[in-house]
Amino acid sequence: MEDITKKNLAELYKNLKKMELYRHALGLLNFDFETCVPRDSKEDEANVISFFSNEYFKIATSKKMKATTVALYEHIDELDEIDKVLVKHLYREYLKTKNVSPKTQMRWSQLYNKSYIDWYNAKTNSDFSLFSESLSNMIEIAKEDVGLRENALPDLYDNLLDDCETGVLTADLDVFFAELKDGLIELIGKIKNSKHVIREDFISRKVPIYKQEQFSNYLLKLNGYDFNKGYLTTTEHPFTSEIAKNDARVTTHYHEDMVLLNIYSVIHEGGHAIFMQNQRDEDHEHFINDSITNGMHESVSRFYENIIGRSEEYIHLIYPKFHELFAEELGDVTERELYEAVNIVRPSLIRTEADEVTYGLHIVIRYEMEKMICSGKVKIDDVPKMWNKLYTDYLGVTPESDKDGVLQDVHWSSGFGYFPSYALGNAYNAMYLKEISKDMDFKGAISSGDFASITAWMKEHVFAHANVLTPKEWLSELTGKTLSAKDFLEYLNKKYSAIYELD
Amino acid sequence: MEDITKKNLAELYKNLKKMELYRHALGLLNFDFETCVPRDSKEDEANVISFFSNEYFKIATSKKMKATTVALYEHIDELDEIDKVLVKHLYREYLKTKNVSPKTQMRWSQLYNKSYIDWYNAKTNSDFSLFSESLSNMIEIAKEDVGLRENALPDLYDNLLDDCETGVLTADLDVFFAELKDGLIELIGKIKNSKHVIREDFISRKVPIYKQEQFSNYLLKLNGYDFNKGYLTTTEHPFTSEIAKNDARVTTHYHEDMVLLNIYSVIHEGGHAIFMQNQRDEDHEHFINDSITNGMHESVSRFYENIIGRSEEYIHLIYPKFHELFAEELGDVTERELYEAVNIVRPSLIRTEADEVTYGLHIVIRYEMEKMICSGKVKIDDVPKMWNKLYTDYLGVTPESDKDGVLQDVHWSSGFGYFPSYALGNAYNAMYLKEISKDMDFKGAISSGDFASITAWMKEHVFAHANVLTPKEWLSELTGKTLSAKDFLEYLNKKYSAIYELD
Repeated sequence: MEDITKKNLAELYKNLKKMELYRHALGLLNFDFETCVPRDSKEDEANVISFFSNEYFKIATSKKMKATTVALYEHIDELDEIDKVLVKHLYREYLKTKNVSPKTQMRWSQLYNKSYIDWYNAKTNSDFSLFSESLSNMIEIAKEDVGLRENALPDLYDNLLDDCETGVLTADLDVFFAELKDGLIELIGKIKNSKHVIREDFISRKVPIYKQEQFSNYLLKLNGYDFNKGYLTTTEHPFTSEIAKNDARVTTHYHEDMVLLNIYSVIHEGGHAIFMQNQRDEDHEHFINDSITNGMHESVSRFYENIIGRSEEYIHLIYPKFHELFAEELGDVTERELYEAVNIVRPSLIRTEADEVTYGLHIVIRYEMEKMICSGKVKIDDVPKMWNKLYTDYLGVTPESDKDGVLQDVHWSSGFGYFPSYALGNAYNAMYLKEISKDMDFKGAISSGDFASITAWMKEHVFAHANVLTPKEWLSELTGKTLSAKDFLEYLNKKYSAIYELD
Repeated sequence: MEDITKKNLAELYKNLKKMELYRHALGLLNFDFETCVPRDSKEDEANVISFFSNEYFKIATSKKMKATTVALYEHIDELDEIDKVLVKHLYREYLKTKNVSPKTQMRWSQLYNKSYIDWYNAKTNSDFSLFSESLSNMIEIAKEDVGLRENALPDLYDNLLDDCETGVLTADLDVFFAELKDGLIELIGKIKNSKHVIREDFISRKVPIYKQEQFSNYLLKLNGYDFNKGYLTTTEHPFTSEIAKNDARVTTHYHEDMVLLNIYSVIHEGGHAIFMQNQRDEDHEHFINDSITNGMHESVSRFYENIIGRSEEYIHLIYPKFHELFAEELGDVTERELYEAVNIVRPSLIRTEADEVTYGLHIVIRYEMEKMICSGKVKIDDVPKMWNKLYTDYLGVTPESDKDGVLQDVHWSSGFGYFPSYALGNAYNAMYLKEISKDMDFKGAISSGDFASITAWMKEHVFAHANVLTPKEWLSELTGKTLSAKDFLEYLNKKYSAIYELD
């Protein structure tokens, strides 16, 4: 390595260390904004977040950082493999942001804040018109942002997809979602005609929240979440947050009459956190620890939620505790009844409450709508109408209000591109499910609660590569195959044929 | 107002607004450090706090801030009354810190962090020797700090007292504590000889934490705490934190077998928060909202905890809820038994668990020890021995371990001067208790739960003046009298003569 490269690398690390301190503070501020902050202080805290995000942006796009990044990129061959990954990431970011001034970033940030508030009010009042101006602004920001990039792709939506899932663009997703949609609609049709009846009278029975809290703690611990490196609390819309290397926080939302919803929310978010808690030390040391794409992350969280959490073996494992803790409320529910209840398939309006099968169609709809919105094929004012049409066509259910329709999720208040990740996550994990099943007695490990072995396998085969590879490279290394919905559809067909006694 | 003064004032407000953003972030970081942060991330978070404290310090002591402060102080006659207060505060701070470099501040900050960790380990291991080096460092920092001040008082300890309670120095406290000590020892002696027996078999009965949580929420709401401008959570050592104008957070610690401890902790901390939530808008607008001294703050929190919370009327008010919620565990406790139990007088080792009467002696001991430590009359290594001797002499109890003795409280890990505030708080509020009793039917308001009237009185007579006056001025305006333990001792004698049937 040349001396100048050494010097540049030292300068880079100095800046990245400083940026890490800002990310820690910002991570905490954002976490607090979604959890603890009292209603009347939200606006002040949003301003604090904007201010420090902007200070962070100033450092990240300072002349020094830019010069160092470019210089190192020009000498990338002299670097270690892991620093190559780091510099490639930074150079990509550099091309994206080099023409964005801190003033522009601040303007966007304030529009995002306004958008969140507008969405919140619109949802509360179930009135899309309160959100439409901000939704238009999100398109405008996206256009302005992409217009300023030096590495922009020709199509607007492709850029947004690329931000969420590097290299997985409409060309891939059109094929993927077409396959998924057809397969799901076929399976849902079969299930609809099944005569098998699943007991569901107990699903909305009230269970006190303090008992649900106990169960949440039990589940996280069981699955291998480390409470010395994390924290569980409540929020409106559950999420997981990596505040620092040893601080991966999980949130959930308790409803007295939706005990199962909390269980799967906690397992899902716990999956994200277990991924975070098991990053390699060197990934942290070289500042590439947050290079994982959304689809990679969702593949793990949904692996825990569905492949593990909704399996017969997992229900067998947790049933004794469930039976004991909820004896008063759910003591009459058998293990089999519980297993079937967590796998009821029924088209419904709310994505986060959807079952494993119909879930994919919620994402298909989002994908098709995002494409149409970004290309201008659907006008902002017509978005709710189009939403309701697609829900009726694909899922056979029609929202009676925007609250249960187009306004249900927060994501669009900060733009587009995230939703496909959820479906990609399912596809990815159905593909590596085959691999883990070859390497170890996966089902046996679940039913005996041997999560140490599962985590060890995931760490070696899944987690260790996620920061250094693109999703396509990662999938190929994990499975030897290219992206397809085939394994996922196969997994669903097998599982639900058994439950619903299909031919 | 001259143009230059106008310009300076605008410049000052610009800087203060920026500093407020940092204080918000730091307030949150510190809150998080004491509540949510997972064990393995504490060190990282401490570093983040040090970094941003230092950035804040740089802005607060920047050339611009210094020049503006001095210029405005020289033209103070041109300012509004409230800006006069602001500039006086800032000028005082300026004289204190003008010779402290950001580098020095960072060094101190790191020593404070180390000191906290050392204290924590020392307490966990009940071994004072693990903390003695850091305790010495605290003295060294104090000496260095005071040595750099341009407005230093001749005596080291007076400076530290002045930092906590402006203008209330050893000359006042020697007299005050002598009076208090004699009065308390006399009253405790009488109570010791009382034949009245208070029922206490139920005090350590186990009460599930979720029920205690419900009761905490009930109490805070009842007393007038606004949950739209606050948040309640748990911590190791309860505290209250003003993160922003509309964000006053309360913390508590639940023990299954100490239900009363939580009740009074929540009422106490809630008192701090009610004070914070009822500052005048103009005090926030002019950045003087955190000018309240510790003694002023403790006077309010202890007013709610003791004067209100431990009164017959308050017990009458909360008893129905207590009786209903804890029916299973404490259903056999009568209203009178509860009243007497929360007022049992018994010398004990732990300050935070002490009753209203013996409490003052814990503070007398702290005061005498702080004086001796700061003047070098007791060597650091002899601190535990001296502690145990004073507890034996004054309270008749001797700690068996440092954990229950000198290491019990966190305060000394960041220096000296705070403890007298607790006793001053008692003295202050016993003095204005007389005033509120003249102006309104105070006891009637408590028993009917009319906290709106109590808050209104406190707002007008107590809260509104706390930011603009020194404690001595405030006390004089509130009561027309000077500091004395007389009213407090009178209050105690009257109350406990009735409970313990003294002559």
